[in-house]
Amino acid sequence: MPKNIEPVYYGEYLQLDKLLDAQAPHSRKYGAEAHDETLFIIVHQVYELWFKQVLHELRSIHQALQADQLDDRTLYTLAHRLRRVLAIQDLMNDQVGIIETMTPQEFLAFRDYLVPASGFQSIQFKELEILLGLTRGHRIAFDQQSFYNRLNDTDRAYLEALEQQPSLFDRVDAWLARMPFLEFNDFSFWQTYQQAVTAALDHDEKIIRETAATPEQLATELASLQSNRDNFAALFDNNRYIELQKNGQVRLSQQAMLSALFITQYREEPAFHLAHQVITGLAEMDEKLTIWRYKHAMMVQRMLGTKIGTGGSSGHDYLRRTTEQNRVFKDFFAMATYLLPKAALPELPAHVQQALGFYFRSNHATA
Amino acid sequence: MPKNIEPVYYGEYLQLDKLLDAQAPHSRKYGAEAHDETLFIIVHQVYELWFKQVLHELRSIHQALQADQLDDRTLYTLAHRLRRVLAIQDLMNDQVGIIETMTPQEFLAFRDYLVPASGFQSIQFKELEILLGLTRGHRIAFDQQSFYNRLNDTDRAYLEALEQQPSLFDRVDAWLARMPFLEFNDFSFWQTYQQAVTAALDHDEKIIRETAATPEQLATELASLQSNRDNFAALFDNNRYIELQKNGQVRLSQQAMLSALFITQYREEPAFHLAHQVITGLAEMDEKLTIWRYKHAMMVQRMLGTKIGTGGSSGHDYLRRTTEQNRVFKDFFAMATYLLPKAALPELPAHVQQALGFYFRSNHATA
Amino acid sequence: MPKNIEPVYYGEYLQLDKLLDAQAPHSRKYGAEAHDETLFIIVHQVYELWFKQVLHELRSIHQALQADQLDDRTLYTLAHRLRRVLAIQDLMNDQVGIIETMTPQEFLAFRDYLVPASGFQSIQFKELEILLGLTRGHRIAFDQQSFYNRLNDTDRAYLEALEQQPSLFDRVDAWLARMPFLEFNDFSFWQTYQQAVTAALDHDEKIIRETAATPEQLATELASLQSNRDNFAALFDNNRYIELQKNGQVRLSQQAMLSALFITQYREEPAFHLAHQVITGLAEMDEKLTIWRYKHAMMVQRMLGTKIGTGGSSGHDYLRRTTEQNRVFKDFFAMATYLLPKAALPELPAHVQQALGFYFRSNHATA
Amino acid sequence: MPKNIEPVYYGEYLQLDKLLDAQAPHSRKYGAEAHDETLFIIVHQVYELWFKQVLHELRSIHQALQADQLDDRTLYTLAHRLRRVLAIQDLMNDQVGIIETMTPQEFLAFRDYLVPASGFQSIQFKELEILLGLTRGHRIAFDQQSFYNRLNDTDRAYLEALEQQPSLFDRVDAWLARMPFLEFNDFSFWQTYQQAVTAALDHDEKIIRETAATPEQLATELASLQSNRDNFAALFDNNRYIELQKNGQVRLSQQAMLSALFITQYREEPAFHLAHQVITGLAEMDEKLTIWRYKHAMMVQRMLGTKIGTGGSSGHDYLRRTTEQNRVFKDFFAMATYLLPKAALPELPAHVQQALGFYFRSNHATA
Repeated sequence: MPKNIEPVYYGEYLQLDKLLDAQAPHSRKYGAEAHDETLFIIVHQVYELWFKQVLHELRSIHQALQADQLDDRTLYTLAHRLRRVLAIQDLMNDQVGIIETMTPQEFLAFRDYLVPASGFQSIQFKELEILLGLTRGHRIAFDQQSFYNRLNDTDRAYLEALEQQPSLFDRVDAWLARMPFLEFNDFSFWQTYQQAVTAALDHDEKIIRETAATPEQLATELASLQSNRDNFAALFDNNRYIELQKNGQVRLSQQAMLSALFITQYREEPAFHLAHQVITGLAEMDEKLTIWRYKHAMMVQRMLGTKIGTGGSSGHDYLRRTTEQNRVFKDFFAMATYLLPKAALPELPAHVQQALGFYFRSNHATA
Repeated sequence: MPKNIEPVYYGEYLQLDKLLDAQAPHSRKYGAEAHDETLFIIVHQVYELWFKQVLHELRSIHQALQADQLDDRTLYTLAHRLRRVLAIQDLMNDQVGIIETMTPQEFLAFRDYLVPASGFQSIQFKELEILLGLTRGHRIAFDQQSFYNRLNDTDRAYLEALEQQPSLFDRVDAWLARMPFLEFNDFSFWQTYQQAVTAALDHDEKIIRETAATPEQLATELASLQSNRDNFAALFDNNRYIELQKNGQVRLSQQAMLSALFITQYREEPAFHLAHQVITGLAEMDEKLTIWRYKHAMMVQRMLGTKIGTGGSSGHDYLRRTTEQNRVFKDFFAMATYLLPKAALPELPAHVQQALGFYFRSNHATA
Repeated sequence: MPKNIEPVYYGEYLQLDKLLDAQAPHSRKYGAEAHDETLFIIVHQVYELWFKQVLHELRSIHQALQADQLDDRTLYTLAHRLRRVLAIQDLMNDQVGIIETMTPQEFLAFRDYLVPASGFQSIQFKELEILLGLTRGHRIAFDQQSFYNRLNDTDRAYLEALEQQPSLFDRVDAWLARMPFLEFNDFSFWQTYQQAVTAALDHDEKIIRETAATPEQLATELASLQSNRDNFAALFDNNRYIELQKNGQVRLSQQAMLSALFITQYREEPAFHLAHQVITGLAEMDEKLTIWRYKHAMMVQRMLGTKIGTGGSSGHDYLRRTTEQNRVFKDFFAMATYLLPKAALPELPAHVQQALGFYFRSNHATA
Repeated sequence: MPKNIEPVYYGEYLQLDKLLDAQAPHSRKYGAEAHDETLFIIVHQVYELWFKQVLHELRSIHQALQADQLDDRTLYTLAHRLRRVLAIQDLMNDQVGIIETMTPQEFLAFRDYLVPASGFQSIQFKELEILLGLTRGHRIAFDQQSFYNRLNDTDRAYLEALEQQPSLFDRVDAWLARMPFLEFNDFSFWQTYQQAVTAALDHDEKIIRETAATPEQLATELASLQSNRDNFAALFDNNRYIELQKNGQVRLSQQAMLSALFITQYREEPAFHLAHQVITGLAEMDEKLTIWRYKHAMMVQRMLGTKIGTGGSSGHDYLRRTTEQNRVFKDFFAMATYLLPKAALPELPAHVQQALGFYFRSNHATA
């Protein structure tokens, strides 16, 4: 412990003079103060504080992933911080219920004073999206055209510069793509895997043919299965995989996808525990963000019906469309597409198993 | 207290012998028991118990709404029971997280033994949907054709008979439609309301024209506003309203919609407290059911990716489509479409206000 | 809508420049920045923002209760705002889980830099306690002596002045005490009630005597029953009631307690709906605050074990003791002590029932 | 996939005929059915289903811990299943809110018909407690004497037999106690640790002396610190440690405590990741169980006030006392008592660090 620590007072440490003096309802300026505008302000301020915390965690993860090699102590920290982000997201998702204690009419009492401010102008939220990997090219059409028009010059320049940096998605992809486990001298893992996959899909087809209730249903589901077969075929064929990427069906690079699949299939292997926690954490972060978008869209519908938002956005419908399309780590989330049951998995050769094992105890015994 | 109460033993009262003997993993029959199949069974059984409780509450509400006149003591009980349903729904929504503690691979270890069982075969859930008012005509196309094919004869007959009964939606609509508050001898409330609405929409149009970032955005948002104007126009024009209903834009009858709007606008009036709680409760029930569907769709995607479900359903995509379309009480939820700020509301004539007031104290004073 | 609304920009409206510039980890001053100190700061800042919001709601309730007479429109607003407070409390209770994503060692990395700051120095939290009615005389011993010593002069003076004002408890008590329902010319409600109570307690005694497993258990439970009888006796005897108050067993005045009991017993009566919602809301606020204290005490134990807190407080044990003793509205929470089953309730005379009814429909019919 | 899978029907798989036929309200037998008794039954049945699931997970953990050596694949599964238990506990804790949607009066409408049944007769809950390690000797006095008297002969015999088996606590203690990391030939870790501890406690004493507001506070806190010094002294002195155990201040054996402390201090070491997850999971399980007990005690107070429970138990007060005393894994929870900041930790010798590292990559490189 260092000497000469200055004594600390709670309110000064937290800078409460600034924090608690930052709520100025605009309704006060134009007539009678609307009681509920304070809630509106504070709910958004709390979101911004959480955004700052989430950015603090994600930036540290983003930075750590820059290294060529991640040792397990670092991965441990990454997984730990991802779990914290998930915990904060749960809270943010529940927080939607707080704004819903304001009735639409209570909102209408001050809504007109906020024009044309809009949640789209939250720089931290946009930074979060860009950091994750939701850059301009991945936004849905409406957003592409209008996203930057709502911002002042400083904010726009700041975000546009961020878009030039590698995103968390990029770094996670690179980290996975350089993982070594994909080729073994005498053993073609992926060839064996493909055979197992074919057997599993044939089995699914059999179920469809036996259980389809109507010819139409049969046709629909066979088409869906065929697209599944195509996905699998593409998994192992670089040209076709690139097609999938172009169509927006997958986003990960082929190498990263194969690594992620291997890790998920063999996650009990000590060498994969932490990598699997990181992959799962990213998928859950995406899921929780999606649920937040969905709840947020519902809340806007409740508050405004089909009216337009304060910033002129058409509200609910737009927000709802973003829930599915803005998912950065969806490939991890839908990894089950490519998973086989454990019983159907090719067995790993002994020397691979050994390489993946964690032989502390025997090491120690011989130390 | 009655005499001769037989002494009660906890386990007998709860019939735990039956309850705790009803978990028989099928994996046990075909080889090694899959540890996680017990979780799968119990999670579904808990859902079924909650469905039973929710049906218990909703049936009592459904029955009470059959009466020609609802006194406030009854409405109080309805609102109370609706709040209980909402609390149970919150729990059911969180419960999705429990099944997510099972990894896709743990599920694959017994999934094949369950073919072709499917959650679509939950009779209680279907009964719940039908009771609410999600009858065949309102289901999305896929569901219409295949819904009944998955059921055995007894179950199908049971549900088809239920579809012939008036639903909770029907009874709520009738209850609202027969409310008396819509016409006052010398005062045309709705005419004044229309004038106020026109002013508000003109104001919105001004905002759009001033803030639209691009010509495309302007066009999109003006189109959205025009559809809003059309909705309002239809609200007061029976022929056009019926068009809205036919297009699936509204479901409530015109009279019920106007009553609901009146109640929502003047919800502080003592006469409307309970009715407003009932309306809001139904809207929230719908919202929570929608979030359950959404989370459920996400969970299925996580468990199966784009694979087909055990019952042959194409899973995630289908489930996701149901979230928006299967909302029975969406009109209440989107009521804000038609709401005006309090300041823009027509003032009620004195004799109407008095009729809506609750003059207990003066009554008492004179008693 | 007023003219000349100045255009609003999201970040300026929320004063994000101040808000997001208010996190300055002290570890940065004394060496390497501890990554987790940002979390520590932000979690506390979020709590302070919610405290501000809760105070905003409670002050408005406190003010409204100042009026001699509360009409139902006002009570409706009070009940609505109380529900919002409860929703915020749920979120604050869950937020304890966020700080728990910091391990004790991560905390130890910067804890020494914060001496002697302490959560006891949160002025808003103390204001909240004082506003509710937790004034000096009601604090537990440790707190009484040391509470004010930790504060600077300004803060101490501010809080001491607040302690001179009537609290929310005082105003709720006065509001209940002046309710008119307690005496009816020709009908002695409370006398009938006492007879019903005696019958119920005799019944409980019978159960105890029949089911006690051992003589020791019998003695313990009969003693508990006797104290229950004494409570009831005191309910109707002013001198003995004052004894209960002095012993800290009840806090409400006798008149307020009787009103609260009457309202709770007959809460289905339209005249009591809102008053019952207010009473229940206050009890739940107390319950949630208690659970927050409990979770907070657990969190401190996890973070520090039996070590002392940064402000020198002995931590977990102290905090845990406050959970039970700092409950302001416990009388409402434990109201069941005095409740009778509906079947055992004295029937109200017709003219009382009529006075409590809400005869809108018939009034309307005759209007 | 095995051949000849019999087709499965949802309702049969889940045995819904038994499950949904197991709710028989007793009020129906004695007069008018109390609407809310169904809720009461179903809430308890859901708890029993979750108890079955929690027992399923804990028994598998209990069994795995029987092995002399746990490899990391097994530990991985244990940690995974513990997390599932925690997720179920969160749900069970929230479920207390469901029963609270029943008012005390609604409960009183059927309470008399349930005498003398009691939650104390839940065999699964008692089994859960015994499995964890809450055996007769550790219960609080009231419980010791009356626990078994409420049970029928079969149940009593079943639980008494279980008390003879080693508990989960016993096995966790043994697993930790046989961990190898405590002695290193040329390096006395614990001696260095003691020196670091002494420095830290001296520092705490300095803070106390500088910040104590009053002589009384100073005395109280110095006494608390001295007890802390005594704890530490006992940590390294077998005779004194056994005293702590006898006084109920610690429950773990000395060897297990030292292992747990080592693992917690060095949890980033790959060799400790999983062990630390298991320890933390057990502590959180205990914490959540404690919060459940607390919420349950609050709920009983709300339902009954100070009345006695249906089984003759004195209810709230008893339940509240159990929350603190029935914590089996409290030593893990309060581990922070013995933790040092990372900066104050003795550095591990290189050969120890190497033994704790996970050198997959280099192993692999040389393979």
